[in-house]
Amino acid sequence: MEKEVVVLRYGHRYVRDSRVTTHCCLVARALGAKEIIIEGSFPGLEDRIEKISEKWGGRFKVGFAESWKDAVKKLRGKGFKIVHLTMYGEPLNRFMEEIKARDKVCVIIGSQKVEPDVYLESDINISVGRQPHSEIAALTVFLDRYFGGKELERIFPNAKINAEKMKKGKIGN
Amino acid sequence: MEKEVVVLRYGHRYVRDSRVTTHCCLVARALGAKEIIIEGSFPGLEDRIEKISEKWGGRFKVGFAESWKDAVKKLRGKGFKIVHLTMYGEPLNRFMEEIKARDKVCVIIGSQKVEPDVYLESDINISVGRQPHSEIAALTVFLDRYFGGKELERIFPNAKINAEKMKKGKIGN
Repeated sequence: MEKEVVVLRYGHRYVRDSRVTTHCCLVARALGAKEIIIEGSFPGLEDRIEKISEKWGGRFKVGFAESWKDAVKKLRGKGFKIVHLTMYGEPLNRFMEEIKARDKVCVIIGSQKVEPDVYLESDINISVGRQPHSEIAALTVFLDRYFGGKELERIFPNAKINAEKMKKGKIGN
Repeated sequence: MEKEVVVLRYGHRYVRDSRVTTHCCLVARALGAKEIIIEGSFPGLEDRIEKISEKWGGRFKVGFAESWKDAVKKLRGKGFKIVHLTMYGEPLNRFMEEIKARDKVCVIIGSQKVEPDVYLESDINISVGRQPHSEIAALTVFLDRYFGGKELERIFPNAKINAEKMKKGKIGN
């Protein structure tokens, strides 16, 4: 069965979080997720990401939810396991194999303050390191590990352009 | 020999890039780099990151450079290999082992437009996937792979606080 990852971006604040949320979208798309659902509003984002997919290939969906709880409920109904990425969770290295055994995963990434219900409603709270860093980084490590690094080599179908290599390849002496 | 990674943030624009640059700093620190050098200015950043290290432990240096070229020259003089992360490079998966064999690595991460000299002055241009995404994500994958995933479990000495785990660990059925 093909793996299906949906990213749920908790508590997006329009304008303030827009650039970070955009990075989250691009990372979700590039590293193998099928969809991102944003709690909150972000006018123009869907079109912007759609244009990127038209140019660079593949399919990626941008959706919105008024409340993360509704989104979680719907995804759970479709058989998704809910994985919340947080500093305050179980070590990724210990639980990754168990999560990789699941084909449908919803990954919740939040902003700095997350309400306690997110911890309680998630099937598992996973810590990508025990230091403060970035939801973009947490999502990145998660997706890279979940897909075993192969997502970096994935061909995106129907691309209009491809990134060309610069000449200088070797690291040298 | 202990591995030493210095991150060089190319072309930082104060205000516009501040939040993304802050994420870059936090990721560099949390995922095992020793130092970040920012091309450009960012008043207050050094203090802010220093406060995080006081609270969460470890040592991490924030430095600035007027020009990325000067920074590269100095680091090369100290024996660092210069690895530029870009969409337009050699696949990470193919070159990572070669890079891991080096103990001193300077990782250049840029903004959207990077001048051609960065490609030419680097020892290797490495592509973290062939899709547009995020310099934060590129840095994250690089550091995670370079340190073999062990950086997530690193203990930061002299921490005043530690992230406590939430109770709900298991993924369940």
